[in-house]
Amino acid sequence: MPKISKKGIDMPASPIRKLTPFADEAKKEGKKIYHLNIGQPDIETPAGMLQALKNINFKVWAYTPSEGIASYRTKLAQYYNKLHYNITANDILVTNGGSEAIIFAMQACLNPGEEIIIPEPFYANYNGFACSSDIVVKPIMSYIENGFGLPPIAEFEKLITEKTKAIAICNPNNPTGYLYSREELEHLKELCLKHDLYLFSDEAYREFCYDGREFISPMHLEGLEEHVVIFDTVSKRYSACGARIGCLITKNTALYQTALKFAQARLSPSLEGQIAAEAAVDTPDSYFQAVSKEYTARRDTLVQGLNAIPGVFCPNPGGAFYVVAQLPIDDADKFCQWMLESFSHHNETVMMAPATGFYSTDGAGKNEVRLAYVLKQEDLKRALECLREALAVYPGRTIS
Amino acid sequence: MPKISKKGIDMPASPIRKLTPFADEAKKEGKKIYHLNIGQPDIETPAGMLQALKNINFKVWAYTPSEGIASYRTKLAQYYNKLHYNITANDILVTNGGSEAIIFAMQACLNPGEEIIIPEPFYANYNGFACSSDIVVKPIMSYIENGFGLPPIAEFEKLITEKTKAIAICNPNNPTGYLYSREELEHLKELCLKHDLYLFSDEAYREFCYDGREFISPMHLEGLEEHVVIFDTVSKRYSACGARIGCLITKNTALYQTALKFAQARLSPSLEGQIAAEAAVDTPDSYFQAVSKEYTARRDTLVQGLNAIPGVFCPNPGGAFYVVAQLPIDDADKFCQWMLESFSHHNETVMMAPATGFYSTDGAGKNEVRLAYVLKQEDLKRALECLREALAVYPGRTIS
Ligand SMILES: Cc1ncc(COP(=O)(O)O)c(C=O)c1O
Ligand SMILES: Cc1ncc(COP(=O)(O)O)c(C=O)c1O
Repeated sequence: MPKISKKGIDMPASPIRKLTPFADEAKKEGKKIYHLNIGQPDIETPAGMLQALKNINFKVWAYTPSEGIASYRTKLAQYYNKLHYNITANDILVTNGGSEAIIFAMQACLNPGEEIIIPEPFYANYNGFACSSDIVVKPIMSYIENGFGLPPIAEFEKLITEKTKAIAICNPNNPTGYLYSREELEHLKELCLKHDLYLFSDEAYREFCYDGREFISPMHLEGLEEHVVIFDTVSKRYSACGARIGCLITKNTALYQTALKFAQARLSPSLEGQIAAEAAVDTPDSYFQAVSKEYTARRDTLVQGLNAIPGVFCPNPGGAFYVVAQLPIDDADKFCQWMLESFSHHNETVMMAPATGFYSTDGAGKNEVRLAYVLKQEDLKRALECLREALAVYPGRTIS
Repeated sequence: MPKISKKGIDMPASPIRKLTPFADEAKKEGKKIYHLNIGQPDIETPAGMLQALKNINFKVWAYTPSEGIASYRTKLAQYYNKLHYNITANDILVTNGGSEAIIFAMQACLNPGEEIIIPEPFYANYNGFACSSDIVVKPIMSYIENGFGLPPIAEFEKLITEKTKAIAICNPNNPTGYLYSREELEHLKELCLKHDLYLFSDEAYREFCYDGREFISPMHLEGLEEHVVIFDTVSKRYSACGARIGCLITKNTALYQTALKFAQARLSPSLEGQIAAEAAVDTPDSYFQAVSKEYTARRDTLVQGLNAIPGVFCPNPGGAFYVVAQLPIDDADKFCQWMLESFSHHNETVMMAPATGFYSTDGAGKNEVRLAYVLKQEDLKRALECLREALAVYPGRTIS
């Protein structure tokens, strides 16, 4: 039997899916599970976007240009220019989800063995994409005590070597919900200019900023045009994860042309997905206002509820729909599994993602979990009640 | 300005797109172009497949499982088992087009620097996928004289080294249309067993076999289960290129589990694409019969028409919707460009793909072009007339 490649062996399994067998088992036993483990929003996709899909009237379901449909890219440019990105359609490459944009950027910018610095905890699939591109992630610790703000630039400096090619941030952050400030981004700009690094900014959660706080992108910073690559997606913005439409944005034309070659090899993003995504750009502001209101209320419920549980600490994040909370437990992986296998409260339990899966540093995040507030408040409250009960009886509790 | 990666620089631009600027220019001048250069069929997508798309009734456009929707995989397994593949849903991994299946297989099976042998001419994007996976394509020449049949096994043996990990075929072939015989596949089987190699079989054109000839897959060969990986797609089968739904099939569970890790990192194929593709499995036989009749007639028109032009030779292929023809010309790249830039007949011209783009060996295919018979017969006839006129006056004609 021929061998699997080393990369195939090294490729990390999705940490979010590790607990799935235990959840399946719990379901079989008739337990109700509150799924706070995954980033699949329950929010409805904008009606106009779904209607565009139903209205398709092509007879031949054809390839589109590899870089995406011209009219969609033009419309997208308008969306971004309202946000003052100052780009044109030619700076936008439409991809199969934000995922593919990340892969293209890593492959186009970094040689095998070269390094990308990412504040941890970070979106776990960056590890998979790095592995499949043979590049190395250098994590840099951020801390729950200051809400997972950007680590000091001096810490970045310590990690920078000949091999460093890029810094990646996710803003607002998955898994922490942290929203970077203009000042933090300015510091990153100086650093990237000083060491001639790319700055990747994953903005999947751009539309999810709370408390009236301003969203700042590296696209807003002058003089960094050749360094910045934005990853975006309709997945979260329009609750359209299954559409698989994202994009890569860069004003660096050499990089754009390179990414385009990777895009040409895989031919095209989906036709109908782009048609629907184009319609989605016209989603009324009222949709986002309602969504933002809903998420803010959920976040408040969740964060307050968590901090009210003895021994629990959870910062109040400014964006996205995740929080990372510190629990009085020995081991988040054990605890999350125990919640599914051995615990129930009124025959209900909660599924969470152990934060260990979002850290590269061994042992980090052992007493932290990520919770996605993708359920309605009523369910969040019941989930909180479960968690409180669970922590009271969990055998591996650390703080009495 | 940070550097582009070496891989990004080495990544081949799509050879099929090289001539696009000249075509755009010709169009601007008002010339009508017969596009025989690309594999985008003009055949209508089955009505039932499009209807399924219009009928979607989800409210949240959600991710699907990374391996694809269970009901779709089950239905697909039925499709394949009608063809005697003897597989289950668990052997099928749904991908973003056949393209992604190829990438997953290369990454899961071959280490950087390892080699895959592919008879040339071959589908040009294999080069791009190999480049992005840091693996090496070793071409093995097939010849127009015998219709591009499988090269002798002895020639394969000569290329096999420590680094060889896989052999890839495309059956029926793009660009040659060649349909492999059971005997040829049996020879490949012996070879793969002897040297412990994977056998990749790209079956994008499976449904396009003519003259009543039987389609044979490596899935039909006993004892090769652990070696075979099938790439498939709805792109050509249902003329649904823009749906971006394909799959990887293997009975090698270690390989399947590895490919699944790559699939998990990119989350999911599109939801609506899979819904439509599931409906497409019910496409009535009458659709395929009509399509097959149409393509057979087109092929006959094209092949006979080509061979009737002085100095032209074109084998009569058994499948797909491409032919590679030998022309009495000095240089196919120059000729194809000249056709767009400097030639017209009644203000019409033909766009073809220089075969050089499908060969890895330098200088091979210089007097060959690939023609896709994706236009109706009437247009094919006019395209043939153009080509005849063009060859009569082309300054680089080699045979008088
Ligand atoms: C931070 C971040 N980036 C990228 C993605 C990829 O999303 P998609 O491929 O659905 O666009 C996700 C999905 O959860 C994410 O959380
Ligand atoms: C031989 C072959 N394999 C794979 C593909 C990829 O097709 P898709 O990604 O649309 O499924 C094509 C498309 O032309 C092809 O000709």
